[in-house]
Amino acid sequence: MGKKTAEDFAREQKEISVSEFFEKNKHLLGFDNPTKSLLMAVKEAVDNSLDACEEAGILPDIVIKIKNVKEDIYVVSVMDNGPGIVKAQIPRILGKLLYGSKFHRLKQSRGQQGIGISSVTLYSQLTTGVPTKVWSKTGNGKKIHYCELHLNTQTNEPDILKQEEVEKGIAGEHGTKIEMEMHGRYRKTVEDYIKHTSVSNPFVKLTYTAPDGTKKIFPRSVNELPRTPKTMRPHPHGMEFGTLKKLLQHTKSRTITAFLTNEFSSIGQHSARAIVKGAKLSDSQKPHELDRVQIEKLIKSMQEAKVQRPPTDCLSPIGNKELEKSLNKEYPEAEFVTSITRDPEVYRGFPFLIEVGIVYGLQEKKKKDDDERQSTIELIRFANKVPLLYQQSACALTDAVKGVDWRRYNMQQSGSNLPAGPMKLVVHICSVWVPFVSESKEAVAGYPEIIKETKLAIQDAGRKLSSFLSGKRKAGEQKRRIQMFDRYSGEVAQALAVLTDHKEKDIQKSLTELVKSRIHIKEEFTDDNTEKNGES
Amino acid sequence: MGKKTAEDFAREQKEISVSEFFEKNKHLLGFDNPTKSLLMAVKEAVDNSLDACEEAGILPDIVIKIKNVKEDIYVVSVMDNGPGIVKAQIPRILGKLLYGSKFHRLKQSRGQQGIGISSVTLYSQLTTGVPTKVWSKTGNGKKIHYCELHLNTQTNEPDILKQEEVEKGIAGEHGTKIEMEMHGRYRKTVEDYIKHTSVSNPFVKLTYTAPDGTKKIFPRSVNELPRTPKTMRPHPHGMEFGTLKKLLQHTKSRTITAFLTNEFSSIGQHSARAIVKGAKLSDSQKPHELDRVQIEKLIKSMQEAKVQRPPTDCLSPIGNKELEKSLNKEYPEAEFVTSITRDPEVYRGFPFLIEVGIVYGLQEKKKKDDDERQSTIELIRFANKVPLLYQQSACALTDAVKGVDWRRYNMQQSGSNLPAGPMKLVVHICSVWVPFVSESKEAVAGYPEIIKETKLAIQDAGRKLSSFLSGKRKAGEQKRRIQMFDRYSGEVAQALAVLTDHKEKDIQKSLTELVKSRIHIKEEFTDDNTEKNGES
Repeated sequence: MGKKTAEDFAREQKEISVSEFFEKNKHLLGFDNPTKSLLMAVKEAVDNSLDACEEAGILPDIVIKIKNVKEDIYVVSVMDNGPGIVKAQIPRILGKLLYGSKFHRLKQSRGQQGIGISSVTLYSQLTTGVPTKVWSKTGNGKKIHYCELHLNTQTNEPDILKQEEVEKGIAGEHGTKIEMEMHGRYRKTVEDYIKHTSVSNPFVKLTYTAPDGTKKIFPRSVNELPRTPKTMRPHPHGMEFGTLKKLLQHTKSRTITAFLTNEFSSIGQHSARAIVKGAKLSDSQKPHELDRVQIEKLIKSMQEAKVQRPPTDCLSPIGNKELEKSLNKEYPEAEFVTSITRDPEVYRGFPFLIEVGIVYGLQEKKKKDDDERQSTIELIRFANKVPLLYQQSACALTDAVKGVDWRRYNMQQSGSNLPAGPMKLVVHICSVWVPFVSESKEAVAGYPEIIKETKLAIQDAGRKLSSFLSGKRKAGEQKRRIQMFDRYSGEVAQALAVLTDHKEKDIQKSLTELVKSRIHIKEEFTDDNTEKNGES
Repeated sequence: MGKKTAEDFAREQKEISVSEFFEKNKHLLGFDNPTKSLLMAVKEAVDNSLDACEEAGILPDIVIKIKNVKEDIYVVSVMDNGPGIVKAQIPRILGKLLYGSKFHRLKQSRGQQGIGISSVTLYSQLTTGVPTKVWSKTGNGKKIHYCELHLNTQTNEPDILKQEEVEKGIAGEHGTKIEMEMHGRYRKTVEDYIKHTSVSNPFVKLTYTAPDGTKKIFPRSVNELPRTPKTMRPHPHGMEFGTLKKLLQHTKSRTITAFLTNEFSSIGQHSARAIVKGAKLSDSQKPHELDRVQIEKLIKSMQEAKVQRPPTDCLSPIGNKELEKSLNKEYPEAEFVTSITRDPEVYRGFPFLIEVGIVYGLQEKKKKDDDERQSTIELIRFANKVPLLYQQSACALTDAVKGVDWRRYNMQQSGSNLPAGPMKLVVHICSVWVPFVSESKEAVAGYPEIIKETKLAIQDAGRKLSSFLSGKRKAGEQKRRIQMFDRYSGEVAQALAVLTDHKEKDIQKSLTELVKSRIHIKEEFTDDNTEKNGES
């Protein structure tokens, strides 16, 4: 036998801390290059602020500053007017991976993993060794807690370097301020993120100071917070064996019917009885007593049961009107703006909802209108109101856009690429649990239910776009024909006047009427044809 | 103030177990659909077997079986002749995420994260509730340990359901057998994985029984194990602040010069002194006493120091000859086979090495040879000898292939897509730490050093392909001209014979000689031209 025995192997085996894992795999958290790393820091801090403000019922007012302290070293500072963080929680929220309030519940929020902001602490200490600085004030008259901390990667616990009460740091009655120093590179993406955040969160005020000192304010376009999404119970469709087994073991319900109505959304007495019957179970059985075969039968019966869609109140979309308003505010020069908010659907038991916005005919793109080949549209993706700026080609939302036949909606498209034209397309998924392709949350994983529903939403919006474009084309053709007629009608009228001995002016008038009515008739006929082809 | 206070938030915050995290995010581990999930199970088990055999110096003999037990439920079983696993280690290796022997060292192996095989346990219990079954025998005459286990997702620790000594299960003197039952769908990808594994591991014997009962054997093409890669120390280039600080804190070296020569590869006395001088440090300073500014200076000096490349013995490529042999064995009908093994390079302090293989002109593709538009080549990616079957478009190796101008090498290519033609292109990265874009290890992250080096390797192989193709084209043109001449020379000779009164046979002979010599001259001229264009 060879060089190494099973005993040798055994001596080498040991536990890997989750922080060590992500320190070595920092690209999984989005820190693969300096530009993106700087953006991640802003994004994680702002997303946390927005979640906290929204849950506390506070209209968010967020101040972001980026300073370039030397060469490739930047200081990112984000201050909010949120509820603050209690002293005891600060270190773990910012200095421990996989810690938070959002993972174990089914409620739509920007954060969900308990990784984001502490990953920025990890990255800061890895690249500059400077601790994360936190100021927190939890209410009027209360002191400001100040804390400096590192993340101990061997234990995945925070190391507190300094902790004290201070007078300054937070201007308002309550709020949190975070400051982090890291290796980075400054690009426009940070401003894109802030601009898009303002589009998808019309109730937020953002103040941004770039490294060159220029300050921009992105004001609110709406002065009310959106409806708070409710924490929900899982939906019966898409349940998995292991999840159901855990629920059966921990439920307080004594019968299976009660278990079904208590632990799930969208199951009433009637459906519960039908599910129990379909699984050939008896309601006298205790939930925790079901064996493997019985659980399998129960799952099958749950899948097949006709139950309601998940309730809409667990999701907080941007809103049809609000999205349109936001887009009109952001792109006032657009020729056409529309938006769609769909009803919720379900994947793996998680409800989700798709919204689509279209902005067509922007000035900047018009230069290229004469070209046969236009550049592809700009796709703006959001997940739970957070702009997704990277990994576009790995995202299910992109797949859905490419999978739509845009030629049907009077857009150019080569193969199954993004369509081409002077358009911005907004696609937003909101869900109690967005499945991301990596911890950096940049792209949505390709669950078939999500792709299908996104396509349907795009088609809804596409039909609206299509009728705008065919109206636009119709108007354009009419205009061209009338221009053509105008160009020659003088000469025709002159000739006819000589031949018929009528007044030239009268002839031209009759001609104009005649031609205009004929153009109208012809166009209606053409359009009928086009639509038929379009739908075939 | 609003609905929720900082104190309310504090009550909700809690720790998230890494297993819970991955259970909810199972797509991150590669379990996003039933087809891929079944493949992941085979892959993780086989990769573990190969690592264990190779480290123990055993020529691997691996037996894989997939059974379809009902509808969409499959049993995967993988048995090897490796060193076995000691009883105490079985539960944690198979029932705990982030546990293993490969994460904390710098040594090339297939596994590196301590996640793979236990993620299959997680997925099995989530979809069927059936425990993972393990048989292990660690030497001749020893008993076989049998164990059934689950993974407790709340604690991320194994739950042992059964444990006993048994007589049967492992046929040889030592080895491990794993059996897992899960939700899946069977597709050809499993066989692709096994076939490609056989290409990149020519020293392995694989026996595979598909769900329909057909059995295939993939024999060894080489009867010797590759050189065992050595565990290495980090390379000074690409060091990061946090990593260097940790090394400085934990080193036993008393001077910085000693620290540099002891803890890093490729640093000798001379380079060490130059680095210390460059950082304006004194060698009397203790490594753990350096402050933040000094560590920064030390990093900068290490980056700028001219040191050797990392040693090749820490990497275990397939090998130039071995890869060519493997490809010839697997594709005997190919017109042209070549391969390239480059020298090691470094990213973030980790050495890596790129190999490229080209298989050109396969029968199956020839049908399309007449078409103007050929289909794109087949790209076969490997990382540390493991075939990568998913997420091709998210992979840095793919980016590198697309980034090469293939027209230079006489291949068709539209835009910056994959080139087109009857070709299979193998790209292999081996490294002591492969940066994957997700835990499922399907695609390599886009570090610039990796993309650049992969392009260089492809260009090396491309030049070889190019001279084959230009030879082929030359031969083709010659053949066509001679065919043309043959078709008409009879008539020409006949006519000349009548006119000149020579014998037709003599004339034809002279004609043939004349034409052949002229074709030759003309072609040399044409080729000169083409090459010039090609290089411009």
